[in-house]
Amino acid sequence: MRKIFLCLFALPMMVQAQSTSDSTTIKMMSDEIMRNGKAYDLLRELTKDIGGRLAGSPQQQNAAIWGKRHMESFKPDQVFMQACKTPNWQRGGKDFSAVVAADGKAMIDKLEVLALGNSLSSNGLVEADLLAVANFDELEKRKDEVKGKIVYYHSQFDPTNIQTFKSYGEAGAYRRAGASRAAKYGAVGVMIHSLSTAPDNSPHTGTMVYDEAYPKIPAVAVGPNDAKKLWNQSRNKQLRVQMQTYGFFLPDADENNVVAEIKGSEFPNEIITIGGHLDSWDVNEGAHDDGAGIVQTMEILRTMKALNYKPKRTIRFVLFANEENGMRGGNKYAELAKQNNEQHVFALESDAGGFTPRAIGISATSPEQFKKFQQWASLLKPYGTEITAGGGGADIGPLKNVNTSIVLAGLVPDSQRYFDLHHAKTDVFENVNKRELLLGAVNMAAIVYLIDQYGTKF
Amino acid sequence: MRKIFLCLFALPMMVQAQSTSDSTTIKMMSDEIMRNGKAYDLLRELTKDIGGRLAGSPQQQNAAIWGKRHMESFKPDQVFMQACKTPNWQRGGKDFSAVVAADGKAMIDKLEVLALGNSLSSNGLVEADLLAVANFDELEKRKDEVKGKIVYYHSQFDPTNIQTFKSYGEAGAYRRAGASRAAKYGAVGVMIHSLSTAPDNSPHTGTMVYDEAYPKIPAVAVGPNDAKKLWNQSRNKQLRVQMQTYGFFLPDADENNVVAEIKGSEFPNEIITIGGHLDSWDVNEGAHDDGAGIVQTMEILRTMKALNYKPKRTIRFVLFANEENGMRGGNKYAELAKQNNEQHVFALESDAGGFTPRAIGISATSPEQFKKFQQWASLLKPYGTEITAGGGGADIGPLKNVNTSIVLAGLVPDSQRYFDLHHAKTDVFENVNKRELLLGAVNMAAIVYLIDQYGTKF
Repeated sequence: MRKIFLCLFALPMMVQAQSTSDSTTIKMMSDEIMRNGKAYDLLRELTKDIGGRLAGSPQQQNAAIWGKRHMESFKPDQVFMQACKTPNWQRGGKDFSAVVAADGKAMIDKLEVLALGNSLSSNGLVEADLLAVANFDELEKRKDEVKGKIVYYHSQFDPTNIQTFKSYGEAGAYRRAGASRAAKYGAVGVMIHSLSTAPDNSPHTGTMVYDEAYPKIPAVAVGPNDAKKLWNQSRNKQLRVQMQTYGFFLPDADENNVVAEIKGSEFPNEIITIGGHLDSWDVNEGAHDDGAGIVQTMEILRTMKALNYKPKRTIRFVLFANEENGMRGGNKYAELAKQNNEQHVFALESDAGGFTPRAIGISATSPEQFKKFQQWASLLKPYGTEITAGGGGADIGPLKNVNTSIVLAGLVPDSQRYFDLHHAKTDVFENVNKRELLLGAVNMAAIVYLIDQYGTKF
Repeated sequence: MRKIFLCLFALPMMVQAQSTSDSTTIKMMSDEIMRNGKAYDLLRELTKDIGGRLAGSPQQQNAAIWGKRHMESFKPDQVFMQACKTPNWQRGGKDFSAVVAADGKAMIDKLEVLALGNSLSSNGLVEADLLAVANFDELEKRKDEVKGKIVYYHSQFDPTNIQTFKSYGEAGAYRRAGASRAAKYGAVGVMIHSLSTAPDNSPHTGTMVYDEAYPKIPAVAVGPNDAKKLWNQSRNKQLRVQMQTYGFFLPDADENNVVAEIKGSEFPNEIITIGGHLDSWDVNEGAHDDGAGIVQTMEILRTMKALNYKPKRTIRFVLFANEENGMRGGNKYAELAKQNNEQHVFALESDAGGFTPRAIGISATSPEQFKKFQQWASLLKPYGTEITAGGGGADIGPLKNVNTSIVLAGLVPDSQRYFDLHHAKTDVFENVNKRELLLGAVNMAAIVYLIDQYGTKF
């Protein structure tokens, strides 16, 4: 295209009058980030020099050291580590599955699969007839057929939900609980349709949980194309499948949350937290999940120091050690907050990808408080976001148990592309856009600035 | 990330009550497009089977035949061609530029360059001292130094504009007019910083126009990384550069607009047009620009027929022959509209990429009319867009000369990624996301449906 916008007239905007200094400060922060932002270069280092960062891995430990070194270079008042035990799950080998002939001797279709995080080894090759079910309802109806079978759940995303997180929530139940619900009726293995929106065949891993009451059977996610093929073939005939996985746990690992802090000048005891998580799955670079949240957090620290911004409240920039398969980072941070009688007033998480930002989602403690936050809407609008109700994140969630009046918030990026690559090998640096990543940091900086200036009590 | 949204309460929304049937129809269209949409598969064919489609090229002609065949398969009331002469610019060879030693004998740095569209051959290798200027102001101040030089404009994007089209508008003046403004003072060649937001080195072509009063000197865009290096080096010393281009024009080509039509049942004489353009630059697949607009247009036709929607007004689905370097497609469409006394009431263009949609931009003919359109905002909101003032497109613009009361509109996708790849070799199918592309079609279908139901006069 060459030229497109003809603006014939501008309507008067019905917005709250806002302080010029607020919009000026936010514009300064935005200009600094969009012009001189380091988040993209930091993400290149984190993903390319360090790589995938499963909790307990050497890469995860290197990432914490890397984060500490960079945050120290931005000269906050202090940077410290919080020691934190994390799970140490090992994939253990190259996960395998295939459709085979009825006698098991010939391979018909090799399937692209990944064992689900925290799932255990199949202890050798498992071979069984396949029971393919659309959902848990069908499983329950056919529970008498389950024994000795490998169960496949056709847990594909509902493409009609415009908010992809809704589909993720619906289909996600099969990844989390599918194994034990099938094991309850005697299944010997479980396969799910990858929780994916992509028109490709990359399998998507992600955490699962065994119910201790039932055998811990192996569990894999099948690549979307293979999964659809498997489902279609299973409509016409009895399939026989093999699977082999290798998962096991080493003893818990010694990891760290990394915390940088700028002390507040007026209300140093009121703490604002911004954060993302350092760990990722093993099969990718964790670029969007959650390298983006990590480098956006670091970018805001860099920007505040570059602009010599002196916050009224204490601002913490937290690189959480472990979210994916254990939530240990956020739990440790909250545990120490409680132990130290810290007064946490606001926390903001970025853990939904480094895509173009659409909203700051805020879980206010009352409708009245939320209305106050919404009066800032016109300050964020020029940067592409609105203020929406409901928001937070897995890492900051535990702070609610420390202070019930804390306001939790989350960056809400556009969600259309996230589940193409979430937990799949395609979550790599090349799939992050520099401007989108930086613009997320701009909006995070803006809301943190406003909370710092005005607090959460009105 | 695992789970993020805690919605503690929902605020009552202050929205206009809307007809349930409108929201139901729009939801049906959305579900059909998001579940069964063919736009992505069509785009794969257009980009991979046909490829780049410069006006006058065999590929452009093939694309028209391809579009006609597919639209016919969707069974509108009719599909017809509108014969249209287009420019037939040929790049003619592999554009070249390099920084060389003062005596011209040794090459110091080969530069990634692309000749600008419609620019002419250098007629052999041009070698001259470089005059690097920040902008036209500096050119005017230094006009006495220009004679015999190759002028470089440091026309880089301002990264601080959140709306990238603003930066494109500012920097675009150098691509369009830079050559003749330098030729006026005796320059022998022109180079510009590519109109790009990407942190890469791909040069971006695009149309330029010679002022007939001055010599038609060669003009190239330099890849962003090379351009920045050239600029920095030029601060310290006199650079000498070579350039060679091969552009020429063949006689105008015979192309076609492709028009599918569903006849209106109540107001058949009121015509609504939806469209994009078939042509692209030669160096890429024209996936976003404007393959996306083409396949979205076709998708809406497919969807309306699949849902057996009977429009009140006549709806035209137009694949315009030529926009990039001649605007001949839109001009021909308007010329025939005038000739046939057609009554065009609304036109919607998609030519800003297949990215996640943010708005439908509408150039209403009065503030009162715009307010009426804005009452539909709550119907579009669930699909991610708002209704904003100002919108249209190069292909539908000429319809304003046929009917001054026509309402022009444009799909406004998120603009952060567009100028990374616009007119560069990176505008390929792989950089289009299926859900984002389809969601654009959903929002286009929604606004066309509302205009069809209620017209533009209230």
